[in-house]
Amino acid sequence: MIVIMQPGADLAQTESVIQRVRDAGLSVHRSEGVMRTIIGVIGDDSTKEQLRSMLEAMDGVERVVKVLQPFKLVSREYLQENTVVDVGNARFGGPEVVMIAGPCSVESRDQTLTVARAVKAAGATVLRGGAFKPRTSPYSFQGLEEEGLRILADARAETGLPVVTEAMDSRSLELVLRYCNMVQIGARNMQNYTLLREAGRAGAPVLLKRGPSATLEEFLLAAEYVASEGNGKIVLCERGLRAFDGYTRFTLDISAVPVLKKLTHLPVIVDPSHAAGKRDYVAPLARAAVAAGADGLIVEVHNEPEKALSDGPQQLREAEFGELMRKVATIATAIGRTVPAVSRV
Amino acid sequence: MIVIMQPGADLAQTESVIQRVRDAGLSVHRSEGVMRTIIGVIGDDSTKEQLRSMLEAMDGVERVVKVLQPFKLVSREYLQENTVVDVGNARFGGPEVVMIAGPCSVESRDQTLTVARAVKAAGATVLRGGAFKPRTSPYSFQGLEEEGLRILADARAETGLPVVTEAMDSRSLELVLRYCNMVQIGARNMQNYTLLREAGRAGAPVLLKRGPSATLEEFLLAAEYVASEGNGKIVLCERGLRAFDGYTRFTLDISAVPVLKKLTHLPVIVDPSHAAGKRDYVAPLARAAVAAGADGLIVEVHNEPEKALSDGPQQLREAEFGELMRKVATIATAIGRTVPAVSRV
Amino acid sequence: MIVIMQPGADLAQTESVIQRVRDAGLSVHRSEGVMRTIIGVIGDDSTKEQLRSMLEAMDGVERVVKVLQPFKLVSREYLQENTVVDVGNARFGGPEVVMIAGPCSVESRDQTLTVARAVKAAGATVLRGGAFKPRTSPYSFQGLEEEGLRILADARAETGLPVVTEAMDSRSLELVLRYCNMVQIGARNMQNYTLLREAGRAGAPVLLKRGPSATLEEFLLAAEYVASEGNGKIVLCERGLRAFDGYTRFTLDISAVPVLKKLTHLPVIVDPSHAAGKRDYVAPLARAAVAAGADGLIVEVHNEPEKALSDGPQQLREAEFGELMRKVATIATAIGRTVPAVSRV
Amino acid sequence: MIVIMQPGADLAQTESVIQRVRDAGLSVHRSEGVMRTIIGVIGDDSTKEQLRSMLEAMDGVERVVKVLQPFKLVSREYLQENTVVDVGNARFGGPEVVMIAGPCSVESRDQTLTVARAVKAAGATVLRGGAFKPRTSPYSFQGLEEEGLRILADARAETGLPVVTEAMDSRSLELVLRYCNMVQIGARNMQNYTLLREAGRAGAPVLLKRGPSATLEEFLLAAEYVASEGNGKIVLCERGLRAFDGYTRFTLDISAVPVLKKLTHLPVIVDPSHAAGKRDYVAPLARAAVAAGADGLIVEVHNEPEKALSDGPQQLREAEFGELMRKVATIATAIGRTVPAVSRV
Repeated sequence: MIVIMQPGADLAQTESVIQRVRDAGLSVHRSEGVMRTIIGVIGDDSTKEQLRSMLEAMDGVERVVKVLQPFKLVSREYLQENTVVDVGNARFGGPEVVMIAGPCSVESRDQTLTVARAVKAAGATVLRGGAFKPRTSPYSFQGLEEEGLRILADARAETGLPVVTEAMDSRSLELVLRYCNMVQIGARNMQNYTLLREAGRAGAPVLLKRGPSATLEEFLLAAEYVASEGNGKIVLCERGLRAFDGYTRFTLDISAVPVLKKLTHLPVIVDPSHAAGKRDYVAPLARAAVAAGADGLIVEVHNEPEKALSDGPQQLREAEFGELMRKVATIATAIGRTVPAVSRV
Repeated sequence: MIVIMQPGADLAQTESVIQRVRDAGLSVHRSEGVMRTIIGVIGDDSTKEQLRSMLEAMDGVERVVKVLQPFKLVSREYLQENTVVDVGNARFGGPEVVMIAGPCSVESRDQTLTVARAVKAAGATVLRGGAFKPRTSPYSFQGLEEEGLRILADARAETGLPVVTEAMDSRSLELVLRYCNMVQIGARNMQNYTLLREAGRAGAPVLLKRGPSATLEEFLLAAEYVASEGNGKIVLCERGLRAFDGYTRFTLDISAVPVLKKLTHLPVIVDPSHAAGKRDYVAPLARAAVAAGADGLIVEVHNEPEKALSDGPQQLREAEFGELMRKVATIATAIGRTVPAVSRV
Repeated sequence: MIVIMQPGADLAQTESVIQRVRDAGLSVHRSEGVMRTIIGVIGDDSTKEQLRSMLEAMDGVERVVKVLQPFKLVSREYLQENTVVDVGNARFGGPEVVMIAGPCSVESRDQTLTVARAVKAAGATVLRGGAFKPRTSPYSFQGLEEEGLRILADARAETGLPVVTEAMDSRSLELVLRYCNMVQIGARNMQNYTLLREAGRAGAPVLLKRGPSATLEEFLLAAEYVASEGNGKIVLCERGLRAFDGYTRFTLDISAVPVLKKLTHLPVIVDPSHAAGKRDYVAPLARAAVAAGADGLIVEVHNEPEKALSDGPQQLREAEFGELMRKVATIATAIGRTVPAVSRV
Repeated sequence: MIVIMQPGADLAQTESVIQRVRDAGLSVHRSEGVMRTIIGVIGDDSTKEQLRSMLEAMDGVERVVKVLQPFKLVSREYLQENTVVDVGNARFGGPEVVMIAGPCSVESRDQTLTVARAVKAAGATVLRGGAFKPRTSPYSFQGLEEEGLRILADARAETGLPVVTEAMDSRSLELVLRYCNMVQIGARNMQNYTLLREAGRAGAPVLLKRGPSATLEEFLLAAEYVASEGNGKIVLCERGLRAFDGYTRFTLDISAVPVLKKLTHLPVIVDPSHAAGKRDYVAPLARAAVAAGADGLIVEVHNEPEKALSDGPQQLREAEFGELMRKVATIATAIGRTVPAVSRV
């Protein structure tokens, strides 16, 4: 059970509610958001039920919600309507299918600006590009770091596209927030709870990727770490499960899309590039994701994939991305959604 | 390397080719099809290459094909164009998206005929229904057996829909072939090589389901067992991998669709019902499958799912199936394909 | 709930029990074993409970057992004490750790007899060797079939070792039973229910291998198919799960050993050869299996593994097998068990 | 290829080597360890081979090693002999099987001291206990943090056992290093590269747990992140893969033990408690791990598991742990190893 305080509730009101809960022998989890305070009530179910109407009548209380799922703030039980997360002009969770595109890694100013212009022209509304790269080997290219962020900021200045990029720890998070619009927490860090909490406290939109063997419950509890710090601007991203078959890099769990849409009010997007691992399969997976109800896609595009410093085989060429956008737009239209820039064409 | 004999090649011609191969120190795998004989040449690659033009010049030889994949007859290297498998009026592998629908199990004449009429009206072009049911527990309902086949034949007589049903062994295969148009080999029997060979020799169209942890190579080699007996009328069906997350029954491997379409010339369909295991997720998975390029779907429909003797939770109600057909038809149109009956409406 | 009839119960007594159950509105699953009849009572739990003492009082009834697990006859609830399965002098499920060894495939009389003598000398008490080989590719060596069985019978005649070999269908089952002591049902056929029932009716000891993605419940229900036909002489074999890492061929599920020993009264053995897929890892896995409580091992041994027609890399050389036997015997002794022939040395 | 500088090599010598490599058109990865500098040479293989003898002849160079594996410093190719990691009196990687034991979480001084005394008495040589707990839900007990570390330090003071505990980020790492002997990096943080690098720079012994779907290559590359910062005191820990079967919490990958022992010179231990998730299966898995060649075990023990704040069902009672120690010691003896304290008894 969760007590949602009104936006203007004062400290005394919040404390009274907490006291009442404790008097009933129950414990409390308190989340201080930027906008409002949320009080989780933990303990015996029948006691909670008795307490409910009492709490609803108290000053400063907006609503009391019963949540059976282990994830609370991110569950559909807590919020029936879809959450919309705004990043620049892109609206995740609304009728539009949002397209994030850009290179795997920021490698140079030229490369990044070239790709940024191309994906903008093709209809993408958010730019991606890695400046801090979590690489399996310490000997692989680890990203341009702050220099990469500066290049991304320049690409934003020129194209007007908001930017999402990955942070791996406190230091890179702070830098990412200084230069970019949205921070990505990658699959490898899905259960890095310190980073999740910091992203929660930072308040900026978070793109949270699912770990390759995470259950959907674990995934939503990771999102709950962000939300419990008062930041509800979370976009979930399915990017494939550990595969036993070498034909694709990961096994895209397409059913995660409708299941997540049922369990949570948060937007859900899909990364067909990492799932496929091979250029040829990106478009069919992208189409499938939109058909299954995804709120957006994140796709890797490179001007010269054969020279890419990371993940070359899965990055689309610029023309291939244009073609992908047209295909995705057709599917979006078929299910009553739109891909903004493309539809305008 | 495979030597494809002409349809009218006589025994002596075939024997000469085999002798020539053996004289070169290589071994032979001989497949006697109904239409023609195929001779697999096994052994050292450079010797094969030298032999090639010699074999192509021999009487009765139509073509010599180099196939690097372990699966030969079913590979794209062997045949570039898509194979089309005809079952009644349904054409698997052509521009149309074929819809197979019907109850999980044939439970009674009334139930089967009711559902058959409903799926026909909604636009399905093949009827499914289990008469021999491979059940995890020996104490679960095992199907009506021959009585079930008779009911299916009656449903075909009334609706005109061709019928596909599962066979589990020699005896049931023989019966299925007597009453139905297409035989299904289920996921549990994907590596029942005796059954695969018998289905190959029988010559009727085969619907082959992928085992829940089979690699695509194992799947295609299972199809190769059928093909190597001279029966190329095979439709492959992806139906989900063993899942570690309880939200769906299996994890639909959506990328199997484009990967299989690349590796093989055989038609590829998807079973969203078994993958989902829950009614609510069947439609999104069906849409995703068609968007990913599937040549068809097999969907479970029941007039009273809550009373079904097997798999109740995943069977659609008749109205839900109609709705699914409309959604699928829209996606099919979006990618330049059609769903026949629905398009006509 | 299960009603176990006395060994000497006559038909009329059995029919009376069934009638009584049906009169109470419950259904019946009847298993006619060679020794006795077992009647499964299916339906509402409270009704069952009321019926219980009534049934226990009826003529010909030995015992009424409540079994909560979906697998009944093979569950620990049904039988507390370990079942011992005798095959020649080998006793699966007793204090001895039984060692089955021999080549992957029977390739020739010489090879088989050479290996049989070597494994006998090293302390194996059962000989293995494949005559019918279920191979992933139709173009791989498929076994010597009946000729292979004759060779195995000769090896038995010479060494005195009982023989286990795989059957894949009705025809091969019949042949295997004619020549060998125990029939193996392989991982690919774990859910070939027709074959399981036939093996159940045949009555000979069955070595049942777990499928590479089968849950333990599915595995035990496969055993239940055999048991429900009246054949309780079943030895379960864990041989590895589908792996995502290429270092071993499968991932040996070592915890399956203690879990199965808790869930079932049947003997449980381990196949380290197929799990490892590489010679070097067979011994550590064999030791681990015995330490975890396995009742035996099945190990592949070849006189010239580099020339083997199947699975060469995982077959031990004769000397390596002798070394393995000594290591395994030490572990067996450490946990209070014995490896018969080795201990005698 | 890796150039290992002598312990006393000066900066100028190192720079000369690097210059020579760059002159040959190859790139360099430089690792400054506490003891010595290691220079990775990256680029074309034939050029490397030509350069080799030249580099070996240069001043300050100890050795040039060719390493084919993607993990370099931790590979067997780099070091043939086993690395021994000393933590207090415990020696990981030597002939002794090291036993780490203690509660899942440090919950109170009493609980921790009680358990510490018990595990010491039973023969454990390292104490474990969580002060910073990475929990799937933000609403679960998150550990006593620094207060927990103080309790662990007290337990060490009283029992003389060195202590290992988990760090989750920079801040907790710094605290852990202040109070404890060895830092654990948990499965969820196996690819938290910032944390791995910091643990590498810190220089204290690291217990690195494998992620539940990490390949062994990814696992060893995670260790390489630590090693490449100059810290070779790494103990690897296998603790189970993501399971699809609910009988155990994870699937212990027992073959990881011999495979890792072949690929790396680092010590390898096993965590049977997290793998099993249930008390009953801890002992069989512990025995299996030692039989498979593990260099140690880490086992959870609680004085009142039914009241534990985390992972109660898998924690052994004190008497059960004593029993486990005796069983493990027997297996260790059987394979020619010892469990120190127990053997002395």
